[in-house]
Amino acid sequence: MWGGSVKTAFCILITYSYTGKMKRSKIIRKCLMLLLLLPCYLAVKGQQAIHQWDVFELTLKGTDAGNPFLDVQLSAEFTNGRHIFKPDGFYDGDGTYKIRFMPDTAGTWTYITKSNHAELDHKKGTFICTKALTNVHGPVAVSHQYHFAYADSTPFTPFGTTIYEWAFKDKERRAQTIETLRASPFNKVRMLAIPPYKANYVEGPGKLTVFPFVGTSKETFDFSHFNPEFFKNLENDIKDLAENGIEADLILFSPYDKGKWGFDMMNDATNILYLKYMVARFAAYHNIWWSMCNENSFIKHLTDEDWDRYFQVVQKADPYGHLRSIHNADRIYDYTKPWVTHVSLQYYNVVKSPWGTSLLRDIYKKPIVNDEINYEGNISKRWGQLSGQEMTFRFWNAYIGCGYATHGETLPTDWISGGGKLIGESPARIAFLKKILETGPREGLEPIDRFFTPNIAGKYGNYYLIYFGTDTPPDWQFKLPKAMLAPGMKFKVDVIDTWNMTITPMDKIFEVKVMDTYSFDDKQQQKIKLPGKPYMALRIIRIDNGFADKKKAKGNELNEDQP
Amino acid sequence: MWGGSVKTAFCILITYSYTGKMKRSKIIRKCLMLLLLLPCYLAVKGQQAIHQWDVFELTLKGTDAGNPFLDVQLSAEFTNGRHIFKPDGFYDGDGTYKIRFMPDTAGTWTYITKSNHAELDHKKGTFICTKALTNVHGPVAVSHQYHFAYADSTPFTPFGTTIYEWAFKDKERRAQTIETLRASPFNKVRMLAIPPYKANYVEGPGKLTVFPFVGTSKETFDFSHFNPEFFKNLENDIKDLAENGIEADLILFSPYDKGKWGFDMMNDATNILYLKYMVARFAAYHNIWWSMCNENSFIKHLTDEDWDRYFQVVQKADPYGHLRSIHNADRIYDYTKPWVTHVSLQYYNVVKSPWGTSLLRDIYKKPIVNDEINYEGNISKRWGQLSGQEMTFRFWNAYIGCGYATHGETLPTDWISGGGKLIGESPARIAFLKKILETGPREGLEPIDRFFTPNIAGKYGNYYLIYFGTDTPPDWQFKLPKAMLAPGMKFKVDVIDTWNMTITPMDKIFEVKVMDTYSFDDKQQQKIKLPGKPYMALRIIRIDNGFADKKKAKGNELNEDQP
Repeated sequence: MWGGSVKTAFCILITYSYTGKMKRSKIIRKCLMLLLLLPCYLAVKGQQAIHQWDVFELTLKGTDAGNPFLDVQLSAEFTNGRHIFKPDGFYDGDGTYKIRFMPDTAGTWTYITKSNHAELDHKKGTFICTKALTNVHGPVAVSHQYHFAYADSTPFTPFGTTIYEWAFKDKERRAQTIETLRASPFNKVRMLAIPPYKANYVEGPGKLTVFPFVGTSKETFDFSHFNPEFFKNLENDIKDLAENGIEADLILFSPYDKGKWGFDMMNDATNILYLKYMVARFAAYHNIWWSMCNENSFIKHLTDEDWDRYFQVVQKADPYGHLRSIHNADRIYDYTKPWVTHVSLQYYNVVKSPWGTSLLRDIYKKPIVNDEINYEGNISKRWGQLSGQEMTFRFWNAYIGCGYATHGETLPTDWISGGGKLIGESPARIAFLKKILETGPREGLEPIDRFFTPNIAGKYGNYYLIYFGTDTPPDWQFKLPKAMLAPGMKFKVDVIDTWNMTITPMDKIFEVKVMDTYSFDDKQQQKIKLPGKPYMALRIIRIDNGFADKKKAKGNELNEDQP
Repeated sequence: MWGGSVKTAFCILITYSYTGKMKRSKIIRKCLMLLLLLPCYLAVKGQQAIHQWDVFELTLKGTDAGNPFLDVQLSAEFTNGRHIFKPDGFYDGDGTYKIRFMPDTAGTWTYITKSNHAELDHKKGTFICTKALTNVHGPVAVSHQYHFAYADSTPFTPFGTTIYEWAFKDKERRAQTIETLRASPFNKVRMLAIPPYKANYVEGPGKLTVFPFVGTSKETFDFSHFNPEFFKNLENDIKDLAENGIEADLILFSPYDKGKWGFDMMNDATNILYLKYMVARFAAYHNIWWSMCNENSFIKHLTDEDWDRYFQVVQKADPYGHLRSIHNADRIYDYTKPWVTHVSLQYYNVVKSPWGTSLLRDIYKKPIVNDEINYEGNISKRWGQLSGQEMTFRFWNAYIGCGYATHGETLPTDWISGGGKLIGESPARIAFLKKILETGPREGLEPIDRFFTPNIAGKYGNYYLIYFGTDTPPDWQFKLPKAMLAPGMKFKVDVIDTWNMTITPMDKIFEVKVMDTYSFDDKQQQKIKLPGKPYMALRIIRIDNGFADKKKAKGNELNEDQP
């Protein structure tokens, strides 16, 4: 199985080490590099091999008679002897069938197909899965109840943005969008899987010619035939995001068709067929999140019971249990239901204060993502008129409330509609917030005293972020809620200007003593002077137990006074 | 069945009318009066008869051998030929068994008992139920999804207060509590069914001698034997409240025993037996609401699954479906569950802004009662330190958020612990708020523009209450969210000082025209001057469609400039 040239390379390396010209650590590094190259090598040799959490794709030839989308059932069972996955396959047009699989563990995997068509049934094979690439951590799941982490336990702190229609734009615009995202703090995008009906998609240079279904207009769409070309384009976008470490919060349905093409008026059987097809095509991409719908209650003929069923269709079909949620309009779906993994809420008021998000945690007992909090912009619609300061303020409230938020921009470059460039003032501040959170607890922020002092988040006894929002206190008397504190603990304090992006360390040490039933204060009653401006915060880090040093050692300590 | 003296009275009345000395309407009034006296008459004659929604009580003699609380099953079926109710009976000590029944309709009712003891089984009877007394409207239920109404459709707007331990105080104190309630705005009280463990209930003049179970201490309590004397006292308190039009939000469990007497550590079978006994004794009182627990999550060994079961025990046993909720501490119970009729939340932050309550409506889709919002007081505990202004502010936020709130006082007279006298500043302001709401829509306030302008509640196109809270704008440009408005509609405006309790009518008429995508404004762009003080509100009432006049005709219009 090991080709001669790989063997030769290892022999050269080992021989070379005996001459004493290379250090052992260097040899190990080189060997590892060769191992990483193994999949490429094997691919060249004709045997498929992939990295952990990449997509293994099995292609089969079969019938193109009748309607393969409806008539042919196809799935496969993949196992490494310990785990079993049973992804469905899908018809990709021209007599081609595919089954995609994302292995969760390195090692040898075998598979066997199952179909109601003999030519697709009982196909067997084996492939090797190697360790994940350094920048691939697997799919994101819920972690520590209110937070997220990748499959390899690396924490994932969502900093979302919204580019609903970027996948329906031309190649240059899409490339520019990826470039912008690379330079931004954003690591999750909300995007539509189905284009919304808009005049510029029907006429002119942006005219769409490829749709999810065969046909090009309401009159010609055949809802019993998917159009593989459309989905191949979408897959390339999802892959581009994955390669840049960005999660794709893929919105399966949306109400923006208004019956013009009919995509939000499809019958129940078509909706279910579509969901299964989407899962079969996309679930093997590690960066997928399922967003059942945007503003779901604006699709008036679908009830919450319909969404219950659709959630369960996705849950059942997806072998990997990717994250699942739904985004509301005027009627909020019941996020306590067991098939909902996290809250994806549109309710702007929630982020006008830190306690809103904290309350939602207490209600839903799941991670809270404020997935639409209005957009930074200057359009006539009142949902797109936030100043950069207000957007930044809402972001801080969401994170101090120990949840997450999603950005969007409705300035003239119209980021939310089609991606491209970001020109707003908030992304830099959101990046600053993100850097600050990297100095915090690995598992995520927790409320410190949520009923009485909701503007403090952190980790009891170790790390505190206090956010003053629009308040402009002249100073702050050192005082912390008592949980997990003990007399003598020592802290350092940084004064943070969240808008001007400066961090000013105080040149004092604060040592706590009992103050009253609820609090500890500084034993010298030291006050911290504040500039009397809005949007100030304090970062308070324990220094006598190594919390601050551990963060520094990981390179997570921010430079001081930096923008 | 009709006694001679009643017949005689009617004959005299009719004869008298023929002489022409009485008007017909007067005759009808007298006849009705006689009909109302019928139950007294029948009671005197030995035949039981009651008013609609009063308690019919069937008393039976049976065994006192063994443990009748555990061994004897007893229930009865009551029917008027159309409705059937099957209340359980209960053992009341000394070989006495009772079955209580609250008829929902006037007319003749028959019953038949069912028991595993022959002497209690198959007892039959008939009684007459007459129309409800004028001040009795039946049990309260959910109405218009987010609000409440009595069984006869009269709206019930909860203005709660908290007197947890009043039922365990001496007779004079209890009488004083009732007197205070009569003069207050409060029409619902939260009260414990089981005494909390406190030093002053064990020693000294307030020492308790009668408990829910036979015995007087942890060592002597027999949890298999209820103490009927205890429950008879409690029933008298519930009846006193009912006679004064006050709902009893009866708290079945509480965590305030801390194992000292053992009432919050009883085993599951005892808890269930207790719940069934409570329902059998109390469900026939029309003013009962079931509060499963106060601060339920502080009873650490009971899980949410236990509460699920306990809710269902009550739901199943209660023939009348009285309101059911539970009051949280640090873990919020899932109020979306079908056996919960309304939200009874402790989450102070919610009422710091009007949108909190409105958000909860959207989440739970049930009436929201903010059943603990901290107390007006000056104790060292931070939950009992609100100023009268802050309590009033939180009340307004709850009602503008289109839900409800519950008051409590921790000033030196210690109202929440034992009732007695109210000395705080908020009750008068809460009474003022209550009077204002009486000028509003009969079905209750609804949010007018909850996502963007959450400080407006009312009824589209007819009635608007705008609350400025702690904001102090110098004036207000007439502008209303567009829903249900049309050009030419005319409004009057009152400026309300919610703290000083004044209403100042503007001597202008405001006629609306389209302003922008979202709003209508006054066609003359008139502004309303405000005093630049906090806690101001505006009441805006439509005058060209009779809404204002209809309210006036019902005597619901407030005098102007009144405190």
